[in-house]
Parts: sequence; C-alpha cells; structure tokens
Amino acid sequence: MLVNGIAQHTIDAGDRGLAYGDGVYRTLECREGQPLLWDLHFSCLARDAASLGLPAPDADILLDEVRAESAGMRRAIAKIILTRGSGRRGYAIPDETVPARLVAAFEWPGYPPEWNRDGITARVCDLRLALQPRLAGIKHLNRLEQVLARSEWRDPSIREGLLLDSEGFVVEGTMSNLVLVRGGELLTPRLDRCGVNGCFLAWLAGVRHVRSERLTLAEVLAADEVWFGNSLAGIWPVAELDGRRWTAFPAAGELASRWAERR
Amino acid sequence: MLVNGIAQHTIDAGDRGLAYGDGVYRTLECREGQPLLWDLHFSCLARDAASLGLPAPDADILLDEVRAESAGMRRAIAKIILTRGSGRRGYAIPDETVPARLVAAFEWPGYPPEWNRDGITARVCDLRLALQPRLAGIKHLNRLEQVLARSEWRDPSIREGLLLDSEGFVVEGTMSNLVLVRGGELLTPRLDRCGVNGCFLAWLAGVRHVRSERLTLAEVLAADEVWFGNSLAGIWPVAELDGRRWTAFPAAGELASRWAERR
Repeated sequence: MLVNGIAQHTIDAGDRGLAYGDGVYRTLECREGQPLLWDLHFSCLARDAASLGLPAPDADILLDEVRAESAGMRRAIAKIILTRGSGRRGYAIPDETVPARLVAAFEWPGYPPEWNRDGITARVCDLRLALQPRLAGIKHLNRLEQVLARSEWRDPSIREGLLLDSEGFVVEGTMSNLVLVRGGELLTPRLDRCGVNGCFLAWLAGVRHVRSERLTLAEVLAADEVWFGNSLAGIWPVAELDGRRWTAFPAAGELASRWAERR
Repeated sequence: MLVNGIAQHTIDAGDRGLAYGDGVYRTLECREGQPLLWDLHFSCLARDAASLGLPAPDADILLDEVRAESAGMRRAIAKIILTRGSGRRGYAIPDETVPARLVAAFEWPGYPPEWNRDGITARVCDLRLALQPRLAGIKHLNRLEQVLARSEWRDPSIREGLLLDSEGFVVEGTMSNLVLVRGGELLTPRLDRCGVNGCFLAWLAGVRHVRSERLTLAEVLAADEVWFGNSLAGIWPVAELDGRRWTAFPAAGELASRWAERR
C-alpha cells in the first residue's frame, strides 16, 4: 500500500478519514498493472472530492501509484482512498490540512462468470437508505448503512441486496448500481437524494442511453431485466428477487462484449 | 495514543473504521489522569457498540488506558475510538475481525467560562440531518453531516450551529445536544430518527427530569432558555440565535454547580 506515495500499511490515527469518514474512495480493476477505465474513475473521484471540498490528487501521480501497486498481478482490484488528512480534534476543517492519498491493490475476487451469464439471486434489504441530498451520489467514507444492510444476510447463495430509500423507492445494491430494462429502454434510479453514483453508470451512459427516474419495487419486479452493476463485477443480471424469477437476459448479453472490451 | 494497549500513533490502513466509518467513539474530560463520569461514558460507549454489533471493550482495561494517556495533564480531553478492526475488502463483516481500540488524550481546549455564564451566539445550519432510525442516537464514525454543517461558518464569534432534520424539526448542535427550558420544564429533541445521544444528556437525566419530544425551531425561539450541552463544554446557554436574544439563564445557572461537582 502507498500512503501519499510512501510504502506503508498504516495511516495516522488522527486522520479525519477515521475520525469522521471525511473522505472519498474508488475501487477499480487493473490488468497487468494497468487500470481499466482510468479516465472515468479519476473523474468520478475528482467529482466526489470536489463535492466535499477536497482537492483532487494529481492525476499522473495517482495513475503511477495505481500502476505500481498492481504491477505483477495479472488481474487486481485497486482501491484509492482520499481523506481530508490529519488535523486537530473537532469537526471544523483546519486551514492547514493536507489530504491523505491511499492506494492499495488486492487479489482479484474471482466472481464466477456464471453470475454474469446466468444471473444471481438477490434480496430486498430491510434497512432503508436515509435521504441526504448533500451527500447523495458521492462515494464517501460514511458507509455504515451499507455495512448494516450487508450484515442482514449470511446465505452465500444471495449475491446482492437491493436497497430502498426511506420513502420506499429503489436506489441501488449494497455494492452496485441498479439498472432496469423495460421495453428496450434502460432505466436507473435517480441518485439525487441518496445512493452512490458508481463509475459503472458512467461507463454505461457512454455506450447506451440510460434514463434516471424515481422507481418503485413494483417497477423492478415488472421489468424485463434487472441488473446490478459495478466496476468490478460488470453486469450481474438478477435471476431471482423477492419471489420473481427471470430466465433470459438478452439486453445484458448484448452489453457483455462491450464490457469485456473496455480499456 | 494507545492502539489496543500499545503506544503508537498509527492504525492499520485496512481498518474498517477508515474504510466505512465502522465504529463508535466518545470524548470525555479527565482531571489529573482521572476521567469524569466514567461509568456514564463507558455505558454510552457500550450501548453504541452493541447497536452496531461490536463487542464492548473490557471496562477496566479501557479505564486504565484512559488514565495512562491522560496522566500528567491537569485537565485533558480523552478520546476513545472503537472500530470493527481490519478485515478483507467488502462491506460484509468477516467472522474473524478483532475490534480496534484507540485511546488518546489531548490538551484541554480552554473554552472560556464566560460562555457558560453569559451564553453564546449560535446559528441555524443550512444542512438538514437525514432521518436514519437505525443509526439514530449512536455516536458512530459516520460524521460527514457534522463536518459539512460545521464548515458552513468561519466567524469565530459563532460558537455552535443548530441542526434541523429533513422534516424541519430541531435535533441538536453540531457537537452538542440541545435543551430547552419552558415553564420550568426541561425539554430535549427526540433522537429516535437522527442525532447523537450524548453522555451529557445521560448526566442531565440523572439530576433533573428531562422530557424528549419533537420540537420545532419556533419552539426553540419561544423558549425561556436554550442550551447546548456536551461532556466537554458543560452547558452553553444561548444568548443569540436567529435574531432572538436571551439575557438571563437562571435555570442554567442553577445547574452549573451540579456540573462542576460531577466526578
């Protein structure tokens, strides 16, 4: 792991990332030391950092660090964390803070390709996401809702949990975004009040028209196809959710080769 | 600083406290190496930890660590952070996680006693707290709302910001709880949907009857006295908020000696 470019596996215990979750992060795929969709990931990171008033790191330095950490691994996950850095105690942001930049690489999790081809079983989580427009869309370090939602099940045959907001609208998976196919159109929940605007959605918007709107669970269950998507898993079509089964995923299949070709 | 009893100033960069804010914390006052209201603080910490499914640390060990860190300081702030510890990447809580326990002591911030006696100027924050009943009351490490709210002002003559929830009810200060005095009765906002159930409130409930209810900003402005309270500041009566001024704080004055006597 690199912390501000220095190889170490610890961070300052006074870092505001720990104290308050005052930071943002990204996970992405690397192959042979080369991140995929780098420009998209960097722009998502920079956008989120700006939303919290954090300066973005230098793109070239960050890219070099991701390459260095993932070098020698055929396929790896890179995780980038950007925090406000260390400062004196208290919520007020000190003038003199210097952001901390962590880059780590992990072994590829080896999601079975059948999940992309045959679909997954998902569940509807009990936890409801709170509505906080000021933080909506940002992949920040305040992720207790996701931790609690993911702890609702231990059955390993359930691969993802669908999260609704406190008004009952669908938002996303615990670790992925949600896409519906309806009458040939791609729909995704609006992320203006909660949820994470994942880089997968930015990729998808570059290859297909995707419309975002307020969506209900009933609309999910009535959709022709339902997908969870993220930058590591790609597209997981849903084969079963809340008693509803889907057996064919032609729209997902059409996009699989585009996903495989991404660089 | 002690991390799991070992003197160091860093934590593992894979700690879930950093990755997800997966943990809880407390700040308290120490005098000559002795924490004040220790039993209350420990029970608040243990309650919050239990809410997240975290085992509480051993009370005796933790007390020894707080004493050791604050030893030699006439008056100090102790900060205790308890995280889920390090684990593999992903929201799911690994079976084998071992919580991380951080104890640090800081110099006393030296809040002027005039703030307790003459009151403070406060403001109403623009940020609205999201409603998340599952996390309400817990002093957890997801504190971006507080960071954003506190960053709304830089005028040092404003000592605290009042936070409302997304429905417009008053909740708390950015770093303190809120108490109203109305017709001789003490009232505090309900913390069942958002907010931090601070140890100050537990102390207050031990010396006075306090009723919690849904309260509006209009009720705050119409109150006989308005206080912000926390374990470090004690009671700060509000002298000015949103154009309303208060000049006498008899109920706060009555409690000042009780606060000074706490052990």
